[in-house]
Amino acid sequence: MSLGDQPSKKGIAIYKNPNANINDRVNDLLSKMTLEEKAMQLNSASIRKSAAVEEGVELIEKSIEEQLKNGIGFIENTFDQRMPEKSVEMVNSLQKYLKEKTRLGIPAIIGTECLHGHAGRNSTVFPTPLAMASSWNTKLVNEVFDVIGREARTRGGHEAHTPVLDIGRDPRWGRIEETYGEDTYLTTQMAISIISGLQGGTTGNPGLTHVIASPKHFAGYGQVEGGRNFAATPIDTKVLFDEILPPFKAVVEQTNALGMMASHCEVDGVPAHGNKWLLTDLLRNTWGFKGIVVSDYNDIKRLEEFHHIAATTQEAAKLGLIAGMDIDLPSASAFKYLQEVVEENPALVKELDASVKRILRLKFMLGLFENPYTETKGVSDFIGNKKHVALAEKIATESVVLLKNTNNILPLNVKEIKNIAVIGPNANSDEMGTYSMKNDDVVSILKGIKNYVGKSVKVNYEEGCKIAKFENKNGQDRLIEYTESEEKESMIKAIDLVKKSDVAIVCVGGNEKTSREAFYRPGVAGDRSTIDLLGNQKKLVMDAIATGKPVIVVLMGGRPYAIPEIAEKASAIVNTFYLGQTNGDALSKVIFGAVNPSGKLTISFLHSAGQIPFYYSMKANSFYKGYWETPPTPVYAFGHGLSYTSFEYSDLNIEKEVFDMNEAVTFSVKVKNTGKIDGAEIAQIYFRDKVASVTRPAQLLVRFEKVWLKAGEEKTLTFALNPEKDLSFTGIDLKKVVEPGEFNLMVGGASDDIRLEKIFRLK
Amino acid sequence: MSLGDQPSKKGIAIYKNPNANINDRVNDLLSKMTLEEKAMQLNSASIRKSAAVEEGVELIEKSIEEQLKNGIGFIENTFDQRMPEKSVEMVNSLQKYLKEKTRLGIPAIIGTECLHGHAGRNSTVFPTPLAMASSWNTKLVNEVFDVIGREARTRGGHEAHTPVLDIGRDPRWGRIEETYGEDTYLTTQMAISIISGLQGGTTGNPGLTHVIASPKHFAGYGQVEGGRNFAATPIDTKVLFDEILPPFKAVVEQTNALGMMASHCEVDGVPAHGNKWLLTDLLRNTWGFKGIVVSDYNDIKRLEEFHHIAATTQEAAKLGLIAGMDIDLPSASAFKYLQEVVEENPALVKELDASVKRILRLKFMLGLFENPYTETKGVSDFIGNKKHVALAEKIATESVVLLKNTNNILPLNVKEIKNIAVIGPNANSDEMGTYSMKNDDVVSILKGIKNYVGKSVKVNYEEGCKIAKFENKNGQDRLIEYTESEEKESMIKAIDLVKKSDVAIVCVGGNEKTSREAFYRPGVAGDRSTIDLLGNQKKLVMDAIATGKPVIVVLMGGRPYAIPEIAEKASAIVNTFYLGQTNGDALSKVIFGAVNPSGKLTISFLHSAGQIPFYYSMKANSFYKGYWETPPTPVYAFGHGLSYTSFEYSDLNIEKEVFDMNEAVTFSVKVKNTGKIDGAEIAQIYFRDKVASVTRPAQLLVRFEKVWLKAGEEKTLTFALNPEKDLSFTGIDLKKVVEPGEFNLMVGGASDDIRLEKIFRLK
Repeated sequence: MSLGDQPSKKGIAIYKNPNANINDRVNDLLSKMTLEEKAMQLNSASIRKSAAVEEGVELIEKSIEEQLKNGIGFIENTFDQRMPEKSVEMVNSLQKYLKEKTRLGIPAIIGTECLHGHAGRNSTVFPTPLAMASSWNTKLVNEVFDVIGREARTRGGHEAHTPVLDIGRDPRWGRIEETYGEDTYLTTQMAISIISGLQGGTTGNPGLTHVIASPKHFAGYGQVEGGRNFAATPIDTKVLFDEILPPFKAVVEQTNALGMMASHCEVDGVPAHGNKWLLTDLLRNTWGFKGIVVSDYNDIKRLEEFHHIAATTQEAAKLGLIAGMDIDLPSASAFKYLQEVVEENPALVKELDASVKRILRLKFMLGLFENPYTETKGVSDFIGNKKHVALAEKIATESVVLLKNTNNILPLNVKEIKNIAVIGPNANSDEMGTYSMKNDDVVSILKGIKNYVGKSVKVNYEEGCKIAKFENKNGQDRLIEYTESEEKESMIKAIDLVKKSDVAIVCVGGNEKTSREAFYRPGVAGDRSTIDLLGNQKKLVMDAIATGKPVIVVLMGGRPYAIPEIAEKASAIVNTFYLGQTNGDALSKVIFGAVNPSGKLTISFLHSAGQIPFYYSMKANSFYKGYWETPPTPVYAFGHGLSYTSFEYSDLNIEKEVFDMNEAVTFSVKVKNTGKIDGAEIAQIYFRDKVASVTRPAQLLVRFEKVWLKAGEEKTLTFALNPEKDLSFTGIDLKKVVEPGEFNLMVGGASDDIRLEKIFRLK
Repeated sequence: MSLGDQPSKKGIAIYKNPNANINDRVNDLLSKMTLEEKAMQLNSASIRKSAAVEEGVELIEKSIEEQLKNGIGFIENTFDQRMPEKSVEMVNSLQKYLKEKTRLGIPAIIGTECLHGHAGRNSTVFPTPLAMASSWNTKLVNEVFDVIGREARTRGGHEAHTPVLDIGRDPRWGRIEETYGEDTYLTTQMAISIISGLQGGTTGNPGLTHVIASPKHFAGYGQVEGGRNFAATPIDTKVLFDEILPPFKAVVEQTNALGMMASHCEVDGVPAHGNKWLLTDLLRNTWGFKGIVVSDYNDIKRLEEFHHIAATTQEAAKLGLIAGMDIDLPSASAFKYLQEVVEENPALVKELDASVKRILRLKFMLGLFENPYTETKGVSDFIGNKKHVALAEKIATESVVLLKNTNNILPLNVKEIKNIAVIGPNANSDEMGTYSMKNDDVVSILKGIKNYVGKSVKVNYEEGCKIAKFENKNGQDRLIEYTESEEKESMIKAIDLVKKSDVAIVCVGGNEKTSREAFYRPGVAGDRSTIDLLGNQKKLVMDAIATGKPVIVVLMGGRPYAIPEIAEKASAIVNTFYLGQTNGDALSKVIFGAVNPSGKLTISFLHSAGQIPFYYSMKANSFYKGYWETPPTPVYAFGHGLSYTSFEYSDLNIEKEVFDMNEAVTFSVKVKNTGKIDGAEIAQIYFRDKVASVTRPAQLLVRFEKVWLKAGEEKTLTFALNPEKDLSFTGIDLKKVVEPGEFNLMVGGASDDIRLEKIFRLK
């Protein structure tokens, strides 16, 4: 009988008593643990690339027995390539080992990724975050992440390194597609929806059906210098407080997020993984975070080898522990020394105990002690089921952004068309964006169009050109553009096809190879120094336009591309980023009018990489000047997106002219569908603090509402602002302030399409 | 008899007594001043575009009488288009008015610009700052600014809005040419040389021969977002302290700079002109600055209309006064309300008095009460005299940077050449860069080459292509590139000329229209979103290279251009930025070998605008990754520059392995000229703090020495570092720290050409 099995005075160890209070169970268990066992709770083992992955579940015990013999806090099982039942069998076998073969029998938290669907084979794949953000539909996003959380848990996962709450303002960055765009308020609203989806509510208890959400990357990772992954992140202090931290603060305070992943980068020069101010003073002591902070891969060790704030890996482990790190992903490259570190610095047992308690608390909360195993039966029926796929298609249709639609060329009328040319390198692509796994049901654009139009319309395909060639030379990734002559023949074929068709749908953009996470290894690219379309893609579009046939340009890829000339010449442009597994089906519904597009951009489309940084909420002064080549505006602005109908705004009515500081600023506005078909408008409310003690943005999103209106229908939207929350900013002395004076209230359909504006005052 | 003429008890007013102590004179005068007279001392009147400029000196009194009747602190006389004697006559007439027609007879400080020569007609024009910086010759720069200060004073000026100490890291920014490059240490060393030159020493008293230097733009203006002039300047706090502020701090502490010009932009969200922390707490109370802070043009008023931290101009004036502003340039658009502001806020008389005292102190120090007039005789003989022009040529030759020299194609041997083709849009250009005035003696490249080679060599010229077209449409500046077909004929002519010549010198780059200060008016461009060569210039170079003839590419213009392909293919590349009035003469001396080039870059040459920001002293992590298209290196690195001879480094000898914190880290290194001709090498010392509590740069320039070596000669250079000054940084709690541990000491000829490296330790 092991120590863990010793009965308490009441007969059974408190920690084993499901009816006991969680705190008591935690304290009881902690009191029974050796230093080694405690240290192991902050460790993680990865089965992602272990022998087990290749050779089968039965070998797991042997291959990672050494790592698990003293228990383990966490097992990392991201990018799960097994079929769903096999996944469950595998994690069950690991939990069985922990339960039966370790002294205290403490189960592990199984970590996963859920960026836009649980990252496991055949899980439902939703649009990428930047695409989903374009829906501005927080309710639907909540439903999506409820499904994602359930699919993850059904497959044996307990924690998701999700969502990415970085503010994405540099389209050169390969991870821009993982963000919800450039705006802090919108990202915050999405964050709340996502985390209450993944965790099954806002109570901070995922129970048996959902998972722990670990938003990332805390904090400022999106601000990597030059959009170069892993680069330094020098951030102005007020920008940090007012623009970078709010989504994280909100999910701690409003949704009880139980996890948090630290950023690869530094905050004010101190790497996040060794930043006590960030992880303890701010996150825990000020915001009241009760969950666990997990590392980004190998980043505690990188305090030594990358950031050089530690001379040895042991010192890195010590800094991480003191800062407040809980789990060292994926394989405890630094925290494997934790026992040694605490033996040498006995006072640190206090930090160690605090962390172990946080970890154990979550395990009890997840019910792992009572239910360490996951049900294998029916897993495959649940994962990727029809209802989930229908939801994926629904949000995909709402994620499409109609950027341009000259003379209402869209929607296309199937009855009036005999031939469609579908051309371009992304027409026949099955890509779904980063962090998605193989899915047997993915629908390419070409397939989706064929599905939709049926046999009455001939759909012809030519690739025309490719996106780029890739090679790895001397360990360096290289992207090589095709020259015009290399693709001359296939370009001519595609344009000939356009000439013979009634309409052309030209699918260009990028792919996972041209925009992706650049890993930590010199020479591994992933970011780009231009945001232009690669190779012959622009020429393909322009040549298609030159035929005089109607041309619908579809942009698909990870980032907002620089398309100033195409924006000028094309008849219609549709942006999708990546729509997920229903890609072609969802897009067809929009193109042919079964769904009226309602998405709006959450990131600016710029003229070139040379215009970076440029985002809608810059301070007024930053909007002032363009360059010789470029006006001080984007090609398409934040909030922009067209519909097949039209909307009119009227009667902006602010309750009063002057409000007290502690009073709600209430107002209403009418929105009317003035066109002939039903549709949804995303009404956007911006404000500007006219005079403040520090320079403030020219406009700042403060509310939005997606409103469905039948043709001719009008609705009144009402809003209430809380001055202290909504109109405040970090003042001269770094304290939050809200100052009296005049505010502009602006209402419209995009940041550059303000329809109504009024002034109110705070006194 | 006016109040000012009332005798003191000793018979003459103290303030009029040249033998009295300056403080006593200041206090005495202040005690006699009305509120209105005090307020006027903070005012400035501009004669730059007044009627007087057009209509002649005799009209000045009438045209600005209204402004001067209560005295005035400052008269702004920048960009003086008169011939030297006329300038002097004009300012004398103004001082005469002040002396004779105002109650107290207080002379004005006459403000000027001295960016790379006094900005007056026919003053000596030296290379632009970014060019001069390439000389790394601080002694010579000191001589240059001594001359500039004397020329300015000789012409009646008392104060120079000079130098620009902004750190220049964004080549999109039109004002990049005004900076000394990307490095803080080098800029600091230049700053010390310049200000002790302009002010006639480091004592902080320009006397009767020199001028007050007002370094600018305090602080952070170089960091405008996106390189867009007037944009926001969000800066990481530690970057501000360690990289932006040091040059300003050094000139206050080490050279007693008597002026300071505030930045158009904000520091930590608070516009510099209204930033009490910056101008009073830091600059005066912490650093001990005793001089005056002058505004950048109209920037006090812009606290209202641009930065929106003031609701009215009066409030802007009040914020400016409280912050510590002294002079409102050019025409007191806000401080004209100062009397009214102080009447309404009587407590502010304290701030007003303090400012008036600062201003009066400088006037006494300049000897203005005893010598209000400037000597007219001999002015033209002094301004732009032969000695000055020889100095201009000397530093111009040292400012040339030889970027590439395959097979020692340079220097060209005049005796072996019969025909030279000089082509390109900059071959016959008289441009000298921003802030320079018309000069009757400027030497174009073409003219310089003709001068040099004499009649034995035939020098043929074809323009080939132009840089760009410009237009102003609807108040918006536009730059239009020439298409290939537009310039086909002239391109062919130029290439035909190359084919018929022994060697081609292809002069490309930019001009003042493609890179210049973008003023505060919407639509006025000046910055660029690409740093590529415009129009057909790259083609001109490539076509010239394709002829198989030796091609020397000369880059001339305001910014470091992106020339990755030219760098690969050209035989030789010479960078000049703008060399000043001796341009063609200086360049010819280098090209034909009369002078061995010794310049080195002080700013990185990048692959494209999409690579920005990229500079040599980034944190190690920022160097880690390139983009798909671009390696994590520049095309030409900071510190790079070739010579016609070669240098060898040896015997890096650090005195000890371990030093105490308060001990000088002394070391020596040998440098040998291993080639066959005499030359100069700029030995560069970099260090890296191997482990620190915050992330630190991968390398940081800490010393340099330009050393002249005859062929075969060897010298030993010795250095001493002061750990507290040289190895410290802003730590976690924002205090300066120097931490024990290992440091790499690196010695080489460029930041990417480290020849010797050793480690020492601090304990």
